[in-house]
Amino acid sequence: MERKVLIVNSGSSTLKFKLFLMPTEEVIAQGMVDRLGLDQSTFTMTYHGHQYQSQQNIPTHAAAVELLVNQLEKQQVINTITDLSGVGHRVVSGGPYFQDSTVIEATNLQQLDKLNEFAPLHNPAELKGIEAFAQMLPDVPQVAVFDTTFYQNLPRVNQVYSIPLEYEKKYGARHYGAHGTSHNYVSHEAARFLQQDYQKLKIISMHIGSGVSITAIQDGQAIDTSMGFTPISGVTMSSRAGDIDISLVAFLMEKLHLTNIQDMIQILNNESGLKGLSGISPDMRDLIAVKDTNPRAKLAIDVFINRIVKYVGSYLAEMNGADVFIFTAGVGENNAAIRKAILQNFAYLGVHVDDQANEQGSGERIITTSDSAITALMVPTNEELVIAREFMRLVP
Amino acid sequence: MERKVLIVNSGSSTLKFKLFLMPTEEVIAQGMVDRLGLDQSTFTMTYHGHQYQSQQNIPTHAAAVELLVNQLEKQQVINTITDLSGVGHRVVSGGPYFQDSTVIEATNLQQLDKLNEFAPLHNPAELKGIEAFAQMLPDVPQVAVFDTTFYQNLPRVNQVYSIPLEYEKKYGARHYGAHGTSHNYVSHEAARFLQQDYQKLKIISMHIGSGVSITAIQDGQAIDTSMGFTPISGVTMSSRAGDIDISLVAFLMEKLHLTNIQDMIQILNNESGLKGLSGISPDMRDLIAVKDTNPRAKLAIDVFINRIVKYVGSYLAEMNGADVFIFTAGVGENNAAIRKAILQNFAYLGVHVDDQANEQGSGERIITTSDSAITALMVPTNEELVIAREFMRLVP
Repeated sequence: MERKVLIVNSGSSTLKFKLFLMPTEEVIAQGMVDRLGLDQSTFTMTYHGHQYQSQQNIPTHAAAVELLVNQLEKQQVINTITDLSGVGHRVVSGGPYFQDSTVIEATNLQQLDKLNEFAPLHNPAELKGIEAFAQMLPDVPQVAVFDTTFYQNLPRVNQVYSIPLEYEKKYGARHYGAHGTSHNYVSHEAARFLQQDYQKLKIISMHIGSGVSITAIQDGQAIDTSMGFTPISGVTMSSRAGDIDISLVAFLMEKLHLTNIQDMIQILNNESGLKGLSGISPDMRDLIAVKDTNPRAKLAIDVFINRIVKYVGSYLAEMNGADVFIFTAGVGENNAAIRKAILQNFAYLGVHVDDQANEQGSGERIITTSDSAITALMVPTNEELVIAREFMRLVP
Repeated sequence: MERKVLIVNSGSSTLKFKLFLMPTEEVIAQGMVDRLGLDQSTFTMTYHGHQYQSQQNIPTHAAAVELLVNQLEKQQVINTITDLSGVGHRVVSGGPYFQDSTVIEATNLQQLDKLNEFAPLHNPAELKGIEAFAQMLPDVPQVAVFDTTFYQNLPRVNQVYSIPLEYEKKYGARHYGAHGTSHNYVSHEAARFLQQDYQKLKIISMHIGSGVSITAIQDGQAIDTSMGFTPISGVTMSSRAGDIDISLVAFLMEKLHLTNIQDMIQILNNESGLKGLSGISPDMRDLIAVKDTNPRAKLAIDVFINRIVKYVGSYLAEMNGADVFIFTAGVGENNAAIRKAILQNFAYLGVHVDDQANEQGSGERIITTSDSAITALMVPTNEELVIAREFMRLVP
């Protein structure tokens, strides 16, 4: 039986959605609410080749959900609410409470609430989305899929931080990672594309969007990832600092007259990364446009590449080599120059870029030459599809 | 003309010294004041094949210096104070003020005072040592040699953090590194030993003592290092955490009811690393002794190795390969098993350990086979000698 499953990604000022027809995996509608809670909010939806757009006051997640469901009906994407088989939510952190995707019920809604401290930048808005759907569609099953699930089986060395071990059991202080849904999808997809056994591949996957994370996969498991307790750490991102010296944080708090560490974290989340280094923009495209004349933009791009190269190198050593590199997400999928700049650092291993495939090819493809020691692929990510599949698994 | 130069390393509760006859570089006395400012302080000195030890109240750095100089006279290592040509001090951080070693004068004593915030764990005690000597021996020239000098010419990408770039110019917020005097010494020594041109080697140097740092050297320059703004970051150390997620720090502060970040930094400096993970000891030897029966000791050792391997891997990628690996400092010089565990992760590059040389050799030596793609050496470090040479350069 065909089922319509709505996949939702709630941010603090956005609510993105994709409506899948399952199990065919056909996308029958997608779109987003933008500037949620701000002035000039917009609703956009594409469906059956049409595009619908409206601008109106959308003050809350509840209002956004109501608008979305109403428009799905009004534009006849669904007949009635009962035509929706379920809703799947992307949730960044499952913290120590959720090892796997879960059907959302009253009991675990409370647990979801406790997750905010594990991904303070993401989980609160996601929870608002979940609650809005639960209120509007109380009879429609909902599923939460966590970005941390893919990292449940990290080896012990990579779960722990080098701090008093008691903090792990007492408070849940450990590496959780993020972007797991994406790394999970593209790594399986790469193995399928290459017709190789996923269990036998050593894969290094680079999710390079506005958030950036690098994941190492071996024996069919994620064994390491650059994001840590929260998505703030790891490599340089659009506006996030990535790894930083904790004593520097204390030093800057004093210089900036900040007494609350959260104020410093706000700077490290929103004013740092490409944005902080360049002083221009968190968007790689803006920086590339001016890099030849603006030394700060050039520096930001160079740092961005350098930090990715170093994480990839660290995972190469950790796994004692690799078979496959994957590039995905906004920058990873669309920026051939960045891909090439990263891959060139692995010439010492015999990695060779196929310039034509890298620059002129389209869609999922191999971008290294046939004699390259490691095969690099570009794989478009599709987190929503993973969530739709998880819904089908949990609500059969 | 022969000159006697005293090299001093002042810690908060220790004052170590080595007296060199220059330019022959002969060590004519060495020793330390231990438990400075605590009960049961001791003074130990070996000289001309003798050992002298005493236990007495040594409450301050000034008292330690007075005792040391008096004993040098009394044991006839020097004839009179005027027989001392100078004193060289190890200083961890030169911060943004000192790009090179310096003769200490009234003017830069004030600047040295401002360095405390750049290495709060080390610089204050070093300054006490310098001030004590300045007071006791006002006519003897003194030199400060900074652990950060070797990192003055890091490429821009590795000087900066991915934070608002203004903070660098305004406050000096950048990577300074540490252990530079050691990495500088062993890397030059390795090139000499291998009869290779230092300028042409790609070297990855591992200083593995109670503090641990990894440094990448290319074109005769340090180009990257694992310690950052302060020595707290990078790999797992004896009692220091190394890299940690800043949001985890905020999370733990809340759980532990700490409002001052310095209290958290104290935990990350003194209660973390091997000590925090194992719950037993910050000393690798203690952990190795029990690792087969104590899973936490085993985990601590595994994490320690893992983090070093990953930094080495990141520098391999950054330099697009390497020619030479160097192990030095307490663990690096004496622990063949740790060296082997690290090197085994680079089999994918064609690195092969020479077990006999690694385990049974002594002193400076190559520990990989002749067909190994990268040559690994054990090189005993000698920071004091570098400082003595710097003294001779600055006070000719």
